[in-house]
Amino acid sequence: MTSLDALAEALGPRNILTTPEDMAPYAVDWRGSYRGTPQAVLRPGTAAEVAAALRIATQAGLAVVPAGGRTGLAGGAVVREAGPPAVVLSLERLNRIRDVDARDFSVVAEAGCIIQQVQQAAVAVDRLFPIAWGAQGSAQIGGMLSTNAGGIRTIRWGNARDLVLGLEVALPDGRVLHDLRRVRKDNSGYALRHLFIGAEGTLGIITAAALRLVPPLRAVETAFVAVPSPDAALALLSRVYGAGADVVAFELISHSCMAVVARYAPQIRLPLPVESPWFVMLELAASHAAVPVRAMLEAALFAADEAGEITDGVLAENEAQRLAFWRIREDYPEFARAAGPAIATDTAVPVSAVPEFLARAEAALAARWPEGRMLALGHAGDGNIHLSLRAPEGMSREDWAARAGGADMVVNEIAVELGGSFSAEHGIGSLKLHVMQALKDPLALELMRGIKGLLDPRGLMNPGKVLPGN
Amino acid sequence: MTSLDALAEALGPRNILTTPEDMAPYAVDWRGSYRGTPQAVLRPGTAAEVAAALRIATQAGLAVVPAGGRTGLAGGAVVREAGPPAVVLSLERLNRIRDVDARDFSVVAEAGCIIQQVQQAAVAVDRLFPIAWGAQGSAQIGGMLSTNAGGIRTIRWGNARDLVLGLEVALPDGRVLHDLRRVRKDNSGYALRHLFIGAEGTLGIITAAALRLVPPLRAVETAFVAVPSPDAALALLSRVYGAGADVVAFELISHSCMAVVARYAPQIRLPLPVESPWFVMLELAASHAAVPVRAMLEAALFAADEAGEITDGVLAENEAQRLAFWRIREDYPEFARAAGPAIATDTAVPVSAVPEFLARAEAALAARWPEGRMLALGHAGDGNIHLSLRAPEGMSREDWAARAGGADMVVNEIAVELGGSFSAEHGIGSLKLHVMQALKDPLALELMRGIKGLLDPRGLMNPGKVLPGN
Repeated sequence: MTSLDALAEALGPRNILTTPEDMAPYAVDWRGSYRGTPQAVLRPGTAAEVAAALRIATQAGLAVVPAGGRTGLAGGAVVREAGPPAVVLSLERLNRIRDVDARDFSVVAEAGCIIQQVQQAAVAVDRLFPIAWGAQGSAQIGGMLSTNAGGIRTIRWGNARDLVLGLEVALPDGRVLHDLRRVRKDNSGYALRHLFIGAEGTLGIITAAALRLVPPLRAVETAFVAVPSPDAALALLSRVYGAGADVVAFELISHSCMAVVARYAPQIRLPLPVESPWFVMLELAASHAAVPVRAMLEAALFAADEAGEITDGVLAENEAQRLAFWRIREDYPEFARAAGPAIATDTAVPVSAVPEFLARAEAALAARWPEGRMLALGHAGDGNIHLSLRAPEGMSREDWAARAGGADMVVNEIAVELGGSFSAEHGIGSLKLHVMQALKDPLALELMRGIKGLLDPRGLMNPGKVLPGN
Repeated sequence: MTSLDALAEALGPRNILTTPEDMAPYAVDWRGSYRGTPQAVLRPGTAAEVAAALRIATQAGLAVVPAGGRTGLAGGAVVREAGPPAVVLSLERLNRIRDVDARDFSVVAEAGCIIQQVQQAAVAVDRLFPIAWGAQGSAQIGGMLSTNAGGIRTIRWGNARDLVLGLEVALPDGRVLHDLRRVRKDNSGYALRHLFIGAEGTLGIITAAALRLVPPLRAVETAFVAVPSPDAALALLSRVYGAGADVVAFELISHSCMAVVARYAPQIRLPLPVESPWFVMLELAASHAAVPVRAMLEAALFAADEAGEITDGVLAENEAQRLAFWRIREDYPEFARAAGPAIATDTAVPVSAVPEFLARAEAALAARWPEGRMLALGHAGDGNIHLSLRAPEGMSREDWAARAGGADMVVNEIAVELGGSFSAEHGIGSLKLHVMQALKDPLALELMRGIKGLLDPRGLMNPGKVLPGN
């Protein structure tokens, strides 16, 4: 019996895909940047089946590439052509909410649950699952954890890692680490779970997670303001932290980004004229409707105006307007694609270093690629600004990559010099192996390789991802 | 040159203690439960000196036991007599605040900084360092991180782990892992820092940490209420989560604990008569003085009273009264010692399981040791109740240990059956090795031993702690 036959027997023949047509969606990432054809696509339905599939595949020397909603930006879920023969293991059928408990403020979700599905399960018991980002209608819990995703609510509730109470993980040899507890305090030995979070499936496959829920937001107020500079934006941030309600979003948007929206998304009604060098979209919220969030936000913005931190601003008057504000932020990646090719980055720096980071990056990029336009938009409250360098009009993706392909490294180096990270919330995947090699502390890389060798001694878990040379 | 001579040369002769008198404070834990005499006590003054000391000691085959404020409850900082020859490495001279940044909401503190010192550094820039517990005047940052300490604010800001932005760690071979960044998002490979947090110095020695600060609390209101049952306490917890302000403390206290305070701490004025089976002390807070926290708390308690969740209650009328409430909670361990010997535990269960946990533990303890009294007090909002079984009056510590020594295991087993932990916030040290052996998942133990072997192949870092059989 071949290993594929054994896998078919373990999972049922319908749950192993082997024709090029069936496998096509799993052989490429959603942007078409990464391609790799697996030997088969496995679709186990339970954690035990994931474990069985891992045991069979790794015994046969087959590499295993786990896949979730496949919305990643770093190619983590696509087979590398240069690697060993591999199967894709899709978690899509592990899509059960195993438990949701209002009194406990927790949910236990399998890895294939869509983020939105978990959000809805929380709403059904009057709770909030606070992770949110543009791809939440497709992205899955397993991918969210394996990339330690961030998103727009990180400023208040942290990254995906910070919401994990417990994990269930299938190891390469087919054993399952059962640590799916909902306990909030546990100091019984080393924090194994944190190794698997953010590891992009290179150490094992997360099959389910116990996750924290929080009280629902009963009062939310959103403002879109013009600020004269990133320094002013940070002063505004400190101010609203003390406004009395929770700061649940604080997004910085450059003039150039707003100009992209104005030109390529004419259906969007802009809240403010595109006349300021920078804009901030911020949201305050409270868990009780009686909290005067609107008055708090107005008072903070009034004082910010007096202090010269903002030059203009508008508050969403109702939920429809609030959602319209959010469309600018959440659909921005689509608008930007229409505006032509760009070299993108995903850096973070200490919050206080954001102004220096932006100034240095802008100067360095302008000096080397004066024909490009720097776009900056992101989670300023986390120090995580997504910078990109856009091509002059009409230039092809290939030409711009050839010309400005080093722009990401220029930005990454500045971020690292300022004590920051070259990979804030998207992960490493295949995309950033060269950056890991160039900019990651060699001692940290050595320790990571040791951990990889310990947990996956044959190197069959998502090979060629995260660690350069693996 | 002997290894002690080499250490004296590296650290300066004044910073290596070798006489029994000088070493005495380091040779015993503060409760007198653990004793062990080192070959020497090292007092390095910088991270480089810590690294040099590690290199010299481990090359000579000397084990190294790191020590901080030595307020731990599990014997983690004391040499084990049965182990290899060992030196104690005290971090007390690494006591500099390297940086505190209001705009960045961060502080960089060396491992020997006292918790209170870091709290004060934060206050000086109008920020809050939210970790707090009874021993904060002596406990140090390194110990806080190495035990992943909890405390009274965990319900709002998490455990020590959750406040860490970056670490500097000296490895057994004398190399230093420089990851002392203040960045809030970093997904560049495996989360190495989380291995060292909570590892009690068995993998390396934390020499400094970058830690999150939060906005200061401008309005704080504290209530002491009588509740009819743990179930009612949980209903009250859900209610106050939605009250509009932050829940920054939620402590459950049994009638038996209040009776101890009434009898052994007559200087304390009790806020309520000792007539209820359970009490809750809770605190709501906000970052702006204009938030009507008092009205929110009153409204929540009024509704809780209507719903039968509370039977009596009092709000602190001023800061002096608030601090008086807190004395009951924070000084309780002292009052309890006066009440005689007890078998203590440090369990956590899912928050929703607290009532069942308490009921089952009480029944099991009463069945086997009817002469004992169960005391329960702890962080109910985290599911972390400290249960203890107190001896009948007049019984000696030794006699009670001989008679009721298995009581901790009875409680631990119930916690684990309910999906909880036998070590919530105090760590394993020497105290709970037998519990790790009996109740920890063998696969988790196997992975932990692999990690120990990887990072400390000669087994010289705090041997005989955390992992049974090491």
